[in-house]
Amino acid sequence: MTERLPKALGFDVFGTVFDWRSSVARQSRPFLDALGRPDIDAGKFADGWRTRYAPAMRRVNEGARDFVVLDVLHRENLEDLLREHGIDPADAGEAMLAEWNRAWHRLDPWPDTVEGLTRLKNKFPIVSLSNGNVAMMVAMSRYGGLPWDAILGAEFARFYKTHPRAYLASAEALGLEPSELGLVAAHHSDLAAARGCGLLTAYVNRPDEHGGGSAPDGYAKQDWEWTAGSFTELADILGCD
Amino acid sequence: MTERLPKALGFDVFGTVFDWRSSVARQSRPFLDALGRPDIDAGKFADGWRTRYAPAMRRVNEGARDFVVLDVLHRENLEDLLREHGIDPADAGEAMLAEWNRAWHRLDPWPDTVEGLTRLKNKFPIVSLSNGNVAMMVAMSRYGGLPWDAILGAEFARFYKTHPRAYLASAEALGLEPSELGLVAAHHSDLAAARGCGLLTAYVNRPDEHGGGSAPDGYAKQDWEWTAGSFTELADILGCD
Repeated sequence: MTERLPKALGFDVFGTVFDWRSSVARQSRPFLDALGRPDIDAGKFADGWRTRYAPAMRRVNEGARDFVVLDVLHRENLEDLLREHGIDPADAGEAMLAEWNRAWHRLDPWPDTVEGLTRLKNKFPIVSLSNGNVAMMVAMSRYGGLPWDAILGAEFARFYKTHPRAYLASAEALGLEPSELGLVAAHHSDLAAARGCGLLTAYVNRPDEHGGGSAPDGYAKQDWEWTAGSFTELADILGCD
Repeated sequence: MTERLPKALGFDVFGTVFDWRSSVARQSRPFLDALGRPDIDAGKFADGWRTRYAPAMRRVNEGARDFVVLDVLHRENLEDLLREHGIDPADAGEAMLAEWNRAWHRLDPWPDTVEGLTRLKNKFPIVSLSNGNVAMMVAMSRYGGLPWDAILGAEFARFYKTHPRAYLASAEALGLEPSELGLVAAHHSDLAAARGCGLLTAYVNRPDEHGGGSAPDGYAKQDWEWTAGSFTELADILGCD
């Protein structure tokens, strides 16, 4: 713990704010059944969808393709995943694919999310600092009742985390030095990149993110400025009413 | 009035959401007094500051200078206005100038603003579509207690209204066709530019914006899709609970 408080907090969203895995699995189940594939485990399907996320973003950050928003990457990854399971996306049809892709717009917040964010907002401006695009973040936030002060992150920066521009553009938009912005995330790799840009770092442990599986980025663990088991505990630690 | 409802609403902010003139005048009074200039009318000073706004933005939109945020333009315009009154900005000093410039971060919402926005938000995503930058909009929104879903507009687009990109980039970020986004504004010139981009238009009359003076853009008046005397009346018209 450090005495130096941030002037604003940016939040990772998938896994940190929302339980993406069980939400995407629950919404994928009826689509898989409708395609005659009750044999496919919906949780593992959600994992497969998510696994395709990092390589797709990397191609944008490395300049192999122009910036496209995460809704587009999610849709491409869904079609790729269906093919891997021997399903032709054309058999699902445009309407089903579009609706299925919007499963990411309807994620359940963790039980402490809304209360914790609301308390943190009383003391700090709170912004999303996610790879999700604006339309997705607006839909998710309305679905979950989240009180963001602003939607920043990848689409604003035109780079995906963990590219430094994603963090630095968000700090600049808030009129802050990097060292005045804190990143709140459940992922060590995200926090490590933020620290590399000079941001303060708050780790929130989300042991259920991977449905009991282990986190893929334990290797990046460091001694973060703050560590909490929930947003409400983080609010306590940061002295919020 | 039209039957075709927008899928989201973007809001002009200065004058439409906030009473900038009386707020800036009230906060300018003690600074002018501290500089030994009780003779300067604070309302007219606010007008002079605001008058410099359009030409400063035009230079950015025309490519005469790179995009800079409105906080920067406001600061340059404050110094220019002080010089016009025979005051050397250096005599005011950096601390006073910075604090004075933040008067624009502490504007009073019109009496119907928060209630109206809250009701409109129940039915529509609501975003700021202003020339104010993100840091300014976050500060203003926290000061006034405004419940935006997202901060879009000039800084996101890197163009100032009434450049078409300011409107079109905001629609794109929301995943909408221009015709699915409604602009809410007290200014005919803003609405005319939005309509030129294909947006729906809602005029809200703010007769006190100029302290009893007449609006400078009456020439641009058209028959807008919706017209209301307040945000709460607009919520009624658009069928919000």
